[in-house]
Amino acid sequence: MKILVLGGCGFIGSHLVDGLLAAGHKVRVFDRAPELYRQLLTNVDYRFGDFSDVPSLAEALEGIEVVYHLISTTVPSTSNLDPVADVQGNLLNTLRLLQLMVGKNIHKIVFLSSGGTVYGIPDTVPIPETHPLRPICSYGVVKVAVENYLQMFHQLHGLEYVVLRASNPYGERQGHAGVQGVIGTFMQKMLAGEQIEIWGDGSVIRDFIYVGDLARLCVLAGQSEVTGTYNAGQGVGYSINEAVGMLSKVAGQAIEPTYRAGRGFDVPSVVLDISQACQAFEWQPSSNLECGLAATWRWMKP
Amino acid sequence: MKILVLGGCGFIGSHLVDGLLAAGHKVRVFDRAPELYRQLLTNVDYRFGDFSDVPSLAEALEGIEVVYHLISTTVPSTSNLDPVADVQGNLLNTLRLLQLMVGKNIHKIVFLSSGGTVYGIPDTVPIPETHPLRPICSYGVVKVAVENYLQMFHQLHGLEYVVLRASNPYGERQGHAGVQGVIGTFMQKMLAGEQIEIWGDGSVIRDFIYVGDLARLCVLAGQSEVTGTYNAGQGVGYSINEAVGMLSKVAGQAIEPTYRAGRGFDVPSVVLDISQACQAFEWQPSSNLECGLAATWRWMKP
Repeated sequence: MKILVLGGCGFIGSHLVDGLLAAGHKVRVFDRAPELYRQLLTNVDYRFGDFSDVPSLAEALEGIEVVYHLISTTVPSTSNLDPVADVQGNLLNTLRLLQLMVGKNIHKIVFLSSGGTVYGIPDTVPIPETHPLRPICSYGVVKVAVENYLQMFHQLHGLEYVVLRASNPYGERQGHAGVQGVIGTFMQKMLAGEQIEIWGDGSVIRDFIYVGDLARLCVLAGQSEVTGTYNAGQGVGYSINEAVGMLSKVAGQAIEPTYRAGRGFDVPSVVLDISQACQAFEWQPSSNLECGLAATWRWMKP
Repeated sequence: MKILVLGGCGFIGSHLVDGLLAAGHKVRVFDRAPELYRQLLTNVDYRFGDFSDVPSLAEALEGIEVVYHLISTTVPSTSNLDPVADVQGNLLNTLRLLQLMVGKNIHKIVFLSSGGTVYGIPDTVPIPETHPLRPICSYGVVKVAVENYLQMFHQLHGLEYVVLRASNPYGERQGHAGVQGVIGTFMQKMLAGEQIEIWGDGSVIRDFIYVGDLARLCVLAGQSEVTGTYNAGQGVGYSINEAVGMLSKVAGQAIEPTYRAGRGFDVPSVVLDISQACQAFEWQPSSNLECGLAATWRWMKP
């Protein structure tokens, strides 16, 4: 199939591109800039531009059958600082994308949503997809709005979609500037000889998914005939302290983190019920956290 | 209290202003234009401007303790034509309003949401507030997003809010241009000697709430210490055909409607479970549909 990956030079996008190429698809990427950690791939059609640039986006959509939408102009921890910009950068531009797709008769999209923010503080763990959506950060509010618009475009225009509510992805090529995820950030600090900082007491529980597993699920979702919304996690929860302990073991070095005041937008526990995705896409995450951390550490260390 | 009513010259807003004045509050109104069916009230401080005009809005908020937000730049039936404009006109401007309120230490807002659109096609009737939110029109998607942002501003900034998910309001001073509600539109057609048109077969069930009852609930919500989200309906459902039959009886004239093809965004049945609002605000709707229609007809006919 002819596939466009919006955000294909990012952390998850780069792994998705690898998976799509391996599955024999023709891949076009639309992103702001080339990948940070690799050269351009020769068998990918790269288009560089801003998500808000409608003419460039329209050109990138030409001849495409399936769109993967992995672009986000914000991250959960910063989205509350400027929710207006969050809505403009993500919701409005995504609406324009959907309208372009309808106009060009492109009928399939896979959208990366956020299992860590759309549910808010969960009533039950593991969280099923039917759990109420009560996001407590702008990032999550916008993801929910996009999900609702996808459902509306499905009903009005026959757009088929798969929403994947990803938990906390980690792995090779994750940014480690401190906003994209704790694993990359922690490893970078360890390599720089700096102290690891933990927000709160480290008891916060997260569902870490290895990026290779998430990318494989994305590929399957794009190839399927299914329309719907699915959790995309490992389905297993670890506290930040447990993850740090495992990281210490994998790296073979002691870690003594500094604990700092917790953040209001951090949900105490997120573990996703992934049974629906496992069934719909005949998928299983293959890497447990220790294996995934080991692979990531091998890539990170010089 | 010093109260600002955004949209206070509209159908519901004008009744709310009456209720607030009767309860002894100082009322300021911000709206695009004066009321359609009444002169300006001498004891109201009117400010005219566009909802997108941040400086005018900021001025209107000066010295205010409670804000009622009843502005909508779209209606359910037209919102799907231009969801980008819907997001810009309603979501973005509401976010700017909330930011202004935080900046000015105004801690209370009553927001008029939409019980007819936020739930989508209901699993159960009457619909409780805990029902999943699956809007199928842009109007509903934006209402859900605003509700979520209110929850977020509550957690981040201590903003107290009451969301009232109104069903189908009708009554004196309802617009009858054909977009604001079937009752006003039907009556106008009857008076003009034109045929009433019904989308679909008339079996669609709606929860009609008399505007006086809704306005009374709004007043109570603004005076209460409660923060939360409440259905605001009559709690009783009538099919469009039943409503037309009652209208015929009230007006003392036979009605033979024309039936036209149904609309995709019309939900088959909406009846709201109003027990939460009744309890939280010690409120009960006082007008049944027949009484409310009679009052409306008295106002409508020359």
